[in-house]
Amino acid sequence: MDRIIAHYLIETPYNLSEAAAVLAGEQSSGTFVAVPGETKELKERFAARVENIEELEKVDRPSIPGDTHKSEFKRAKVSVSWSVENFQDNIPTLISTLQGNLYELRQFTGLKLDDFELPSWYTEKFRGPAFGAKGTKNLAGVKQELPMIGTIIKPSIGMAPEETSKLVRELIEAGIDFIKDDELMASSANSPFKNRVELVMKEINSFQQKSGKKVMYAFNISGDLETLKRNYDTVLENKGTSAMLSINSLGWAGVKAIADKGELSIHGHRNGWGMMNRHPLLGINFPAYAKLWRLAGVDQLHVNGIRNKFWESDESVIRSIKSCSSKFLDHEDLLPVVSSGQWGGQAFDTYKFTNTTDLLYMAGGGIMAHPSGPSGGVKALKQAWEGAVNGSTLVETAKEHKEFRQSVEKFGGK
Amino acid sequence: MDRIIAHYLIETPYNLSEAAAVLAGEQSSGTFVAVPGETKELKERFAARVENIEELEKVDRPSIPGDTHKSEFKRAKVSVSWSVENFQDNIPTLISTLQGNLYELRQFTGLKLDDFELPSWYTEKFRGPAFGAKGTKNLAGVKQELPMIGTIIKPSIGMAPEETSKLVRELIEAGIDFIKDDELMASSANSPFKNRVELVMKEINSFQQKSGKKVMYAFNISGDLETLKRNYDTVLENKGTSAMLSINSLGWAGVKAIADKGELSIHGHRNGWGMMNRHPLLGINFPAYAKLWRLAGVDQLHVNGIRNKFWESDESVIRSIKSCSSKFLDHEDLLPVVSSGQWGGQAFDTYKFTNTTDLLYMAGGGIMAHPSGPSGGVKALKQAWEGAVNGSTLVETAKEHKEFRQSVEKFGGK
Repeated sequence: MDRIIAHYLIETPYNLSEAAAVLAGEQSSGTFVAVPGETKELKERFAARVENIEELEKVDRPSIPGDTHKSEFKRAKVSVSWSVENFQDNIPTLISTLQGNLYELRQFTGLKLDDFELPSWYTEKFRGPAFGAKGTKNLAGVKQELPMIGTIIKPSIGMAPEETSKLVRELIEAGIDFIKDDELMASSANSPFKNRVELVMKEINSFQQKSGKKVMYAFNISGDLETLKRNYDTVLENKGTSAMLSINSLGWAGVKAIADKGELSIHGHRNGWGMMNRHPLLGINFPAYAKLWRLAGVDQLHVNGIRNKFWESDESVIRSIKSCSSKFLDHEDLLPVVSSGQWGGQAFDTYKFTNTTDLLYMAGGGIMAHPSGPSGGVKALKQAWEGAVNGSTLVETAKEHKEFRQSVEKFGGK
Repeated sequence: MDRIIAHYLIETPYNLSEAAAVLAGEQSSGTFVAVPGETKELKERFAARVENIEELEKVDRPSIPGDTHKSEFKRAKVSVSWSVENFQDNIPTLISTLQGNLYELRQFTGLKLDDFELPSWYTEKFRGPAFGAKGTKNLAGVKQELPMIGTIIKPSIGMAPEETSKLVRELIEAGIDFIKDDELMASSANSPFKNRVELVMKEINSFQQKSGKKVMYAFNISGDLETLKRNYDTVLENKGTSAMLSINSLGWAGVKAIADKGELSIHGHRNGWGMMNRHPLLGINFPAYAKLWRLAGVDQLHVNGIRNKFWESDESVIRSIKSCSSKFLDHEDLLPVVSSGQWGGQAFDTYKFTNTTDLLYMAGGGIMAHPSGPSGGVKALKQAWEGAVNGSTLVETAKEHKEFRQSVEKFGGK
């Protein structure tokens, strides 16, 4: 019988094999005493199985509260498997199994889901991203040799639709490929959703008629399910191509229901992610997280950026970008959304460490606050990426191109 | 204009007022440089405002990664407010604001959302729990003077519907008020959902005809949205009274869509909760969490139990139980689901510290592994609660009642 395998990082004051057995027990038949009905046959068929334990370092302080009255805490990678019979194609129940009550176990002073693997027949049950990385770039008429260049409407919240659409026109004319609402902005008192979509899409559609290029705008359709459906339809009716969802607050079931429609490229915003990832030994790592959203049908997923303004290390960002194109079932690759403090200077290292242009490369201030205005900002980003892909250095590219040179002068200290 | 206020626990190496300003800025207009369009008027209307800072202790080690190259980290309670104009009645966007990118800020080495407050007019927009604590107890014919006594089908996964319904019959005859599926069990290979509901409800309905008492069974309807709806209807068609949802894996939008139907009492299972709560300075605390689910329409919410088998402290459990009945809009109280290692011995302290019987008091092994069988287990729990409410001690209650005495003998060391 096919099995699903999950890989965890753990920390425990106990013997590693005992601790792993507790984890497996909790996630298949846990109660504090043996109960009638728990037969050997049932256990063999449905119990979780510890597949592997790889010992790592020992530390003298526990990472999170638990059984902390010891002087030594062992870290390890642990792999656990379950029969697919336990969940079949029910992903919320799979999630409850992979990342459920096990976080409550006092036997662990650290526990993080790192990755998991599904049997290939899940491909028949889940389409995955309807567009994926390449399809999303195609939708926006972006060449595959370069990343899709994007920006965020700022200030995050407060502008009226007329102001937003004016800014959109400016950005379109500057040569942008992609624009998005901020996650704090769905429908505010002075920017009703429908009104904003109509005015923004008027600009985008009119530019398309002139130039043939259809800029992608990810409208933040987040809300309750009725709102999500209504907003999705509003975007479609106005010939939009993308919808943004705050995936953590909406949840897997809501996101899947919307992504299933399959007509808009789904921009997955991971705001709130830090609460389940920032601690090195609690929560979930990006490879596992990305697979769950790929199953739901998300096309574009935030990954932060190199030398970002947030806390995340470059190493972690690079791992996230790579995992967007790791083979998973027969699903399309995710398009990693690179953002936070980006201005083009990071293009060189981003390309060096990931070797891909399947990226949505986003800059906010890096475009809007460029000395030559948004048009200079977009040009600078494209110059940076062309340079990076062609093997030029930052210095060489700055010498060659005025707009990128201005970026280096303004943002280069960051 | 009405404002929404959120209360955070923070830790930072920076000056507290600067750090609080960063938090407020990120959650209303954050980008790394000032951008055009960010006018004074917009800021005044839409910007987050720091309402209060209460300094707490200082520590010499950072709690989570961030700007950690300092030698002193200050802790504080910080309150921040936003105009309701920012979200209106869009709760997912409110969630993205209260617990969004702010967890990524390197300026914080700890950040936890503790609680929040909404203006009273949200009552008109959100019904909240359709049944709540008292309504759920009424549905199951439980007297308000005692908690509702419940148990979980164990082993968690593996039993066929015939075995589950046989166990249900035994539990019903033992006098139980409530039974639930495990969160790991929705529809397994040998227990198709519909089949299980039909056989279980046959037992429950037949007992109701004989005795007038309708035992509540919370079927785990979790799945994608189509599955949720189909399973909900299956429970209704078979005259069930409760549906269990794994709220974290389903998400707010999916749970709200199901709870809106309003015909079944919604049992909110919080599996996965540890990943966002276990670290003392990362994630979300129960008072804020419970309010979000109350807005979605959850009726019953897990809170762990006194002297539980998990890591959580009694102090934290007590705070959770109390916050289920804290005033929130004009919503019904939540019914706290007390579980994990419970056998009746904890009834005395639970009542002493919370002074409420609006509880769903769950025991797994404490009922199933009772020396006189499940019937003895249920009797023991009721004896314990009657004793606790009448002011008797554990020792007095054990002297007076055989079944509870057997519990003390078997489980009392735990």
